[in-house]
Amino acid sequence: MSKSVLIVAAHPDDEVLGCGGTIARHVAEGDVVHVVFMADGVGSRGDGSTYQHQRRNIARDQALEVLGVSECNAFDFPDNCMDSVPLLDVVQALEPIIEQVQPTRVYTHHSGDLNVDHCVTHQAVMTACRPMPGSSVREILTFEVMSSSEWATPSVTPFVPNAFVEMSDYLSKKLEALAAYEMEMRSAPHSRSVAHIEALARHRGNCVGVDAAEAFVVIRMVE
Amino acid sequence: MSKSVLIVAAHPDDEVLGCGGTIARHVAEGDVVHVVFMADGVGSRGDGSTYQHQRRNIARDQALEVLGVSECNAFDFPDNCMDSVPLLDVVQALEPIIEQVQPTRVYTHHSGDLNVDHCVTHQAVMTACRPMPGSSVREILTFEVMSSSEWATPSVTPFVPNAFVEMSDYLSKKLEALAAYEMEMRSAPHSRSVAHIEALARHRGNCVGVDAAEAFVVIRMVE
Amino acid sequence: MSKSVLIVAAHPDDEVLGCGGTIARHVAEGDVVHVVFMADGVGSRGDGSTYQHQRRNIARDQALEVLGVSECNAFDFPDNCMDSVPLLDVVQALEPIIEQVQPTRVYTHHSGDLNVDHCVTHQAVMTACRPMPGSSVREILTFEVMSSSEWATPSVTPFVPNAFVEMSDYLSKKLEALAAYEMEMRSAPHSRSVAHIEALARHRGNCVGVDAAEAFVVIRMVE
Amino acid sequence: MSKSVLIVAAHPDDEVLGCGGTIARHVAEGDVVHVVFMADGVGSRGDGSTYQHQRRNIARDQALEVLGVSECNAFDFPDNCMDSVPLLDVVQALEPIIEQVQPTRVYTHHSGDLNVDHCVTHQAVMTACRPMPGSSVREILTFEVMSSSEWATPSVTPFVPNAFVEMSDYLSKKLEALAAYEMEMRSAPHSRSVAHIEALARHRGNCVGVDAAEAFVVIRMVE
Amino acid sequence: MSKSVLIVAAHPDDEVLGCGGTIARHVAEGDVVHVVFMADGVGSRGDGSTYQHQRRNIARDQALEVLGVSECNAFDFPDNCMDSVPLLDVVQALEPIIEQVQPTRVYTHHSGDLNVDHCVTHQAVMTACRPMPGSSVREILTFEVMSSSEWATPSVTPFVPNAFVEMSDYLSKKLEALAAYEMEMRSAPHSRSVAHIEALARHRGNCVGVDAAEAFVVIRMVE
Amino acid sequence: MSKSVLIVAAHPDDEVLGCGGTIARHVAEGDVVHVVFMADGVGSRGDGSTYQHQRRNIARDQALEVLGVSECNAFDFPDNCMDSVPLLDVVQALEPIIEQVQPTRVYTHHSGDLNVDHCVTHQAVMTACRPMPGSSVREILTFEVMSSSEWATPSVTPFVPNAFVEMSDYLSKKLEALAAYEMEMRSAPHSRSVAHIEALARHRGNCVGVDAAEAFVVIRMVE
Repeated sequence: MSKSVLIVAAHPDDEVLGCGGTIARHVAEGDVVHVVFMADGVGSRGDGSTYQHQRRNIARDQALEVLGVSECNAFDFPDNCMDSVPLLDVVQALEPIIEQVQPTRVYTHHSGDLNVDHCVTHQAVMTACRPMPGSSVREILTFEVMSSSEWATPSVTPFVPNAFVEMSDYLSKKLEALAAYEMEMRSAPHSRSVAHIEALARHRGNCVGVDAAEAFVVIRMVE
Repeated sequence: MSKSVLIVAAHPDDEVLGCGGTIARHVAEGDVVHVVFMADGVGSRGDGSTYQHQRRNIARDQALEVLGVSECNAFDFPDNCMDSVPLLDVVQALEPIIEQVQPTRVYTHHSGDLNVDHCVTHQAVMTACRPMPGSSVREILTFEVMSSSEWATPSVTPFVPNAFVEMSDYLSKKLEALAAYEMEMRSAPHSRSVAHIEALARHRGNCVGVDAAEAFVVIRMVE
Repeated sequence: MSKSVLIVAAHPDDEVLGCGGTIARHVAEGDVVHVVFMADGVGSRGDGSTYQHQRRNIARDQALEVLGVSECNAFDFPDNCMDSVPLLDVVQALEPIIEQVQPTRVYTHHSGDLNVDHCVTHQAVMTACRPMPGSSVREILTFEVMSSSEWATPSVTPFVPNAFVEMSDYLSKKLEALAAYEMEMRSAPHSRSVAHIEALARHRGNCVGVDAAEAFVVIRMVE
Repeated sequence: MSKSVLIVAAHPDDEVLGCGGTIARHVAEGDVVHVVFMADGVGSRGDGSTYQHQRRNIARDQALEVLGVSECNAFDFPDNCMDSVPLLDVVQALEPIIEQVQPTRVYTHHSGDLNVDHCVTHQAVMTACRPMPGSSVREILTFEVMSSSEWATPSVTPFVPNAFVEMSDYLSKKLEALAAYEMEMRSAPHSRSVAHIEALARHRGNCVGVDAAEAFVVIRMVE
Repeated sequence: MSKSVLIVAAHPDDEVLGCGGTIARHVAEGDVVHVVFMADGVGSRGDGSTYQHQRRNIARDQALEVLGVSECNAFDFPDNCMDSVPLLDVVQALEPIIEQVQPTRVYTHHSGDLNVDHCVTHQAVMTACRPMPGSSVREILTFEVMSSSEWATPSVTPFVPNAFVEMSDYLSKKLEALAAYEMEMRSAPHSRSVAHIEALARHRGNCVGVDAAEAFVVIRMVE
Repeated sequence: MSKSVLIVAAHPDDEVLGCGGTIARHVAEGDVVHVVFMADGVGSRGDGSTYQHQRRNIARDQALEVLGVSECNAFDFPDNCMDSVPLLDVVQALEPIIEQVQPTRVYTHHSGDLNVDHCVTHQAVMTACRPMPGSSVREILTFEVMSSSEWATPSVTPFVPNAFVEMSDYLSKKLEALAAYEMEMRSAPHSRSVAHIEALARHRGNCVGVDAAEAFVVIRMVE
């Protein structure tokens, strides 16, 4: 039975880094996938020019096309400064989308990432997806984003996965989608390098006996 | 010996949801109970009109009357947006009240609630009640508020109670006080329904061998 | 698609207390349910006579019949003394059952229960179900057992659920199955009373917007 | 109103190290204090001779006399080897004492100490004091024992106190009682030195604005 | 081999309270020590006058001179209101200093302090010191500041040290440097009293078998 | 300055899986490395014959030779059944070795592994290395062992590393030493496959900006 899946990512590239293979698998299995971006990912930089903004949008569109995603929303919350916005504003931006998409499964950022936009996004999703009678959302899972999840203070809220989605057949799609974001990727041995993303996929997969996987934390599951 | 008890609640209705039975018991046992509200609970809504504001205040006064509380302060911090205020402002609002009321026991919100006003209130209470020589505060306990404490990310700062106040004889008062807030309550099986609040009271009580109880986390106790 | 479900319970009655409604729902939905008991639940008592043993077995058979379970194994590890057995022995008892039943979902005890048999059972299940290539097990969930999970030291490994199985239509079956174990149940307001189990079911359900649910912790999920 | 207080210590000297000042204060305030020891504290040593055993008992009696305690039980569980005994045996030793003493407050070891007897003692107390209807126990608090609580793996179950009992007027009694156990004490800067115990008392006290205190974790409180 | 050490403190006096003895030891061992202050420590007070500001700066200079530190930067982020600044601004202030100082070891505040400036400072340091290829930073350690670290909600992110720097020979320097901040210090038994700081140093030292130490949490270490 | 390094591993192969690259680096840097094994790693198997035992010993000797380790002790605690031995016996076996080797740094198992021998070994090392005055041990670090650390219940005591030892130049040695244990290794995508160990090394390294690393938790560090 086809599912409606929502991914809420802080910036374009987080959706691929966090769950690109899983997105490709959902699409392949006939699920409807909708992606939301909260900020543009370039506004906070010295060179956050219109040109950079356009490049990032083009990359985003290419990546989504590789993954087979056609539905997407992009907000323009202040990049890398989402802590300067009242949380309520972020929640109220998400609520109409939840209402419209009626997702059964939602993927979003880990609550304890180093990046402040990731944390705010997580918190807003939790509020927008509260389990009231009639809510469509049955599952909330959080993903890890290299160069953020693993760089946070380890003792506070570490990313300790309890869910693994095999994506052995979709790892190539994930890497292809990452290639679209080449301006965001760094050379190995940087944590946000293609080589690392592939090593991580092998590691997460082998931990549960498959070739490649993405890892998640189950936040809530209602059957 | 009569105690001075302070409840610091983010919004009118949190005091009843969190510790209404305990308040009624304190009053019955001759303790002096003072309640502080940080925000009005309606300002953040589309219909946060004067009319709504007045209705909420009337409900609040009725609820406090049912519980037997006569001392109360109400601040007008921005509703559901207390993260937009520097924490210091919230602390400085509370300090004169602590000074005046000289509470020995303080009840407030759990640190890890979904609602951002609850979190800010907790944090401000912790600062306003720091254990300096001469401080009147001997005990700080945090309560749970259904539709907020249990809806937060479970792995972060879950509400795991270690204190239970029996309120078997005061559960009816709690439910009566909730009735005053009927505009805030929802129909079962919503988490903020009267039926759920009663089931929770039974659950928390039975866990420690009594008919009904409210559950708390002891944050600090000085004897 | 029909699932193969395995429940590993320390003692007869734990399977009903922990996930009786969920079992009934699995059966109703056509899944194959297999239950394993590790100890007899009476051996550690002063009156752990043959008569008590037989009564407990009869109760167990009645309960399983109410729930619709026909497959069951019972080991005779020392009751309430499973800490006196090397963990390896417990693991080696479980492994042939995993091999034979080929479960996709496994339910067992919470790792942090007060009862030592519950802890040992949890630990053995984790070892017997390690995620090697070819393992049938896709999901491990742990349940709570009143008078054990909530009585443990709260700060150590509290039961903080992240999965909820609605059982509104099966709560009556759960209570009926508990009736078979009346010799194990206590009068309210004891934590292991029928009234408490029902209040807990309402509470767990209302937390996620349904009438009644059983709560679990997702330990591992592989898709 | 006079309270009945029970201290459950693994070895003679733990009761003084953990809560000697608090014991002296309870006695001074008219409470009835009963102390239970689980093992003799010398059996595990190469020199665990009868002579050592007698010396330790004499020290114990002197220490209790200094603190003003007249009621005491001593079990002879295998010293430093309580992990070799089924937990149930330890629980069943404690239950008749709980029944007889009818304590309202119980002090025992922290669950996460380095010393295995401390851990077993904690676990057994939790089982013997489960909160069933009619139980006398209203409060369980755990204490820290230098050279054990602070030497455990810090990330597992650290001792993070939330309760402080002022004992400024009883610190001298605590140090006097420790003097009785001089054979167990070490020279500074060893963690189990008199100088350290005094520094710790100052530290715990000053954290909450008093001259000297003992620190505890509230495990359960029922009012 | 001489190390480059960076201390990032929220306010003047935090560097001495948190790691004054360790600073003195680094200096004595020939390491280059650089201290950064984020806010002036007086701006948030009613009497945050120019005069107070100057006094605090004079104290700071005296303290650093006692410790032997010659390199120092001071930002003027809003005192006790650093939560009102986007985190990105704080990070961008720190990055050029990291770039210039090229520290191998960084000391900063614990992530879970009561004081909001401490928390923001910690978070900003974590971002400014992310472990990219070529980063000079090999070690990040966090210190405790009495009247803040121990006054936070104990169950959230307690300070549980895993690193201890002996400073038996430098405790007198630490106390001398604290004397410079006498306007910030309080009389015993206040937590921020000289007597408490000394008791804490003894306690932290004795826990690991030395006369005096400062305690830290290792956040990250790369060899 | 040459260091004395001690590795305490439960079974032959754990030393390579956990810190083989780090061992090779210590040796290359002139440190003296001593390895202790607690059990033989084959005794618990159906085919735990003399032949298997000899094969494992030969593999062990080859692996140690590849890594350059010449000092080694092997105990014969019951394989995979170390929970059947009193902890004290394990501690007393280790103490003379600590006394003789006088290590400054100790590596051992993570406290929360699935394998019970790993847990017992960790606990015994903590006791044998308690930080008394005069102890040689300045650092205790714990390593992860694939097919055990990552298979434990994730919410209990997850392995969340805070220390990383670069071993880019020694990864080939680690893989070569693993080859000696080929009878213990499994084919990919099993978690204990050579391919996984290499992917993990890349992942741990890239997280901190280097090509390959082993990850550890700092348990205690005294400078």
